[in-house]
Amino acid sequence: MNDPPGSDEDFMAQALAEAARGLGRTSPNPPVGCVLVQPNGSGGEVVGRGFHPRAGEPHAEVFALREAGERARGATAYVTLEPCSHFGRTPPCADALMAAGVARVVVAAGDPNPQVNGRGLERLRAAGIAVQTGVLEAQAVRQQAGFRARMLLGRPFVIYKYAMTLDGKVAALEEGGGSEANGAVTGPEARARVMGWRNEADAIAVGVDTLLTDDPQLTTRGVVGGRDPRPVIFDRQGRTPPTARALRPGAVVVTAPGAEAPALADAGAVLLPAATLEEALRGLHDLGVSTLLLEGGPTLASAFAESDLIDEVRAFIAPKLLGAGLSPLAGPLRRMNAAGMLDMYALEQLGADILVSASVRRVAAEPTPSPRTGGA
Amino acid sequence: MNDPPGSDEDFMAQALAEAARGLGRTSPNPPVGCVLVQPNGSGGEVVGRGFHPRAGEPHAEVFALREAGERARGATAYVTLEPCSHFGRTPPCADALMAAGVARVVVAAGDPNPQVNGRGLERLRAAGIAVQTGVLEAQAVRQQAGFRARMLLGRPFVIYKYAMTLDGKVAALEEGGGSEANGAVTGPEARARVMGWRNEADAIAVGVDTLLTDDPQLTTRGVVGGRDPRPVIFDRQGRTPPTARALRPGAVVVTAPGAEAPALADAGAVLLPAATLEEALRGLHDLGVSTLLLEGGPTLASAFAESDLIDEVRAFIAPKLLGAGLSPLAGPLRRMNAAGMLDMYALEQLGADILVSASVRRVAAEPTPSPRTGGA
Repeated sequence: MNDPPGSDEDFMAQALAEAARGLGRTSPNPPVGCVLVQPNGSGGEVVGRGFHPRAGEPHAEVFALREAGERARGATAYVTLEPCSHFGRTPPCADALMAAGVARVVVAAGDPNPQVNGRGLERLRAAGIAVQTGVLEAQAVRQQAGFRARMLLGRPFVIYKYAMTLDGKVAALEEGGGSEANGAVTGPEARARVMGWRNEADAIAVGVDTLLTDDPQLTTRGVVGGRDPRPVIFDRQGRTPPTARALRPGAVVVTAPGAEAPALADAGAVLLPAATLEEALRGLHDLGVSTLLLEGGPTLASAFAESDLIDEVRAFIAPKLLGAGLSPLAGPLRRMNAAGMLDMYALEQLGADILVSASVRRVAAEPTPSPRTGGA
Repeated sequence: MNDPPGSDEDFMAQALAEAARGLGRTSPNPPVGCVLVQPNGSGGEVVGRGFHPRAGEPHAEVFALREAGERARGATAYVTLEPCSHFGRTPPCADALMAAGVARVVVAAGDPNPQVNGRGLERLRAAGIAVQTGVLEAQAVRQQAGFRARMLLGRPFVIYKYAMTLDGKVAALEEGGGSEANGAVTGPEARARVMGWRNEADAIAVGVDTLLTDDPQLTTRGVVGGRDPRPVIFDRQGRTPPTARALRPGAVVVTAPGAEAPALADAGAVLLPAATLEEALRGLHDLGVSTLLLEGGPTLASAFAESDLIDEVRAFIAPKLLGAGLSPLAGPLRRMNAAGMLDMYALEQLGADILVSASVRRVAAEPTPSPRTGGA
């Protein structure tokens, strides 16, 4: 994954790294990064960088242009998402790039927002700016998955994270006391990675059984500058104890319609009644959640799988054989040739453990990638 | 794993490749390879190669010395196992190396055979030959695992091979008609790898339920020069149909003591009555089986795991989510912090699938590696 220095891919990778600084902070907006490069003998010199820090603040392009100043003239702008063409809370970024005299714009992925959706690129081309798209598009689409699910599906993007033994078990049978009493599945490197994901997710979901067993904090620990995702507890009957550690202000408790849980409301929880998981996800969408990290347990994850609501899996596999135990999914019931297909996009070794990252292959979850267009 | 050309490791890797040609054919002897190298400016020139083709035929060193002829004088011999020092069916190889004027002997792993166990090396050193051990020892020990289990444990080395989805399922629930009717878990690259393992294993074990469901052939297909492993069917009550495709001459049916299965004996099967798995493995040992490839199903594998009789796992993981299904192991019942620990020695991508190869960490299964000794 090391792109040659000075290549379009190299600069776009830098723009993606900029964008990543906003992950978990920009919803309902997408995370976006921008790098401005003045061509020189050895490929180019970065003259400005920026990322979108949160909704209501300026877009990535604006920060990069501010840093570049006069040196934006004649530069190439690498932007992870098609520059906007409409007046939202800020003026259109396409116009700002044009006004600054940028000569070329390289874009990773098109903006599925119906208010943009190609119009930003058209506007740039009409102004005589060379436009190229599709550079590191797959990475950008994954980074923007929450925003894209918001635009295209009207619900959060759901990532199921689990850690299992090599014989496919996430926990022993009938263990009380949670992972601290009974031993974690994976090692410290895996745990650190999970903390990074929590820092980047809008919200983190667990079932009430996990809450009652483990009383997890669901916080981000050990990440410099990290912040906590919003806890979401799926708890049809309102059994969550008001003293649960995850019940910090803003925590959401998803209950069955009509379930009474005044003590939870008093404890600062947002009660979200929902008859189905789809309805719950629409409610989370309305609360501004674009990415949902589903951490368990298997009962909740199986319900998501039954409703085909898992978009990505991140599976740690520990070099252990447990024997009897709980599986990461207990449903739906289907035949092997009807199993849900995944596209693995990363296979890593983290300490002694393996991490498999894979997207759920689903028709119409994403628009077909925009064709590579234009170019200098 | 690419060793520098001309290094000790490079030549030992060639000797291991020679030895591999005998895998599945040498029992009760070990697979052994030998490469003779005349030193020259660029590291050395291979002047002889050999491997042990089967019990009763000459050892690897003899073939290599025959090929080298006079050019063995002053050469370095790379041997994957300590040369023997005793008269068996053939004269001692240590003596043959000395007689040929070999100047240096590099050995991968010591011979645990109590008749050898360091005496071969002593004999060489006493003759003034430089001896070095421990070169690619871990690979050699894995390659000789069957022989070592025979010597140290008095039973075959058991490799549990399975293919599961990323949610840990080897099969759907209540599927009739086997993998052909319901879709295989993994792709063609994984299947080809399994065929290579069958070619190298002495025997292949399945439970009678797998036999009744799938009627597998348990043969080696698509391997040039391949041969079939001996089928071993674990079938306490003798339910195997005499028409089962796996019942070729030499096939073993392990039954409960006292089970009557005259039709199976008539069909050419070897009946092996055994009260426990340990007893069954001792019986297979006596039949000359040193490596046993355990292919399923989960019920049989769980019984092996309950008795702590799995030595290695080779787990394919397919990028799929099944949901409800059968797990590779359903027992024993224990807590996560008592899970059996594995040492992963290879992580590969095969087509769309992942292959994890791992040794079961077990006290006293292997002697501690012999210290690196001597040297030129």
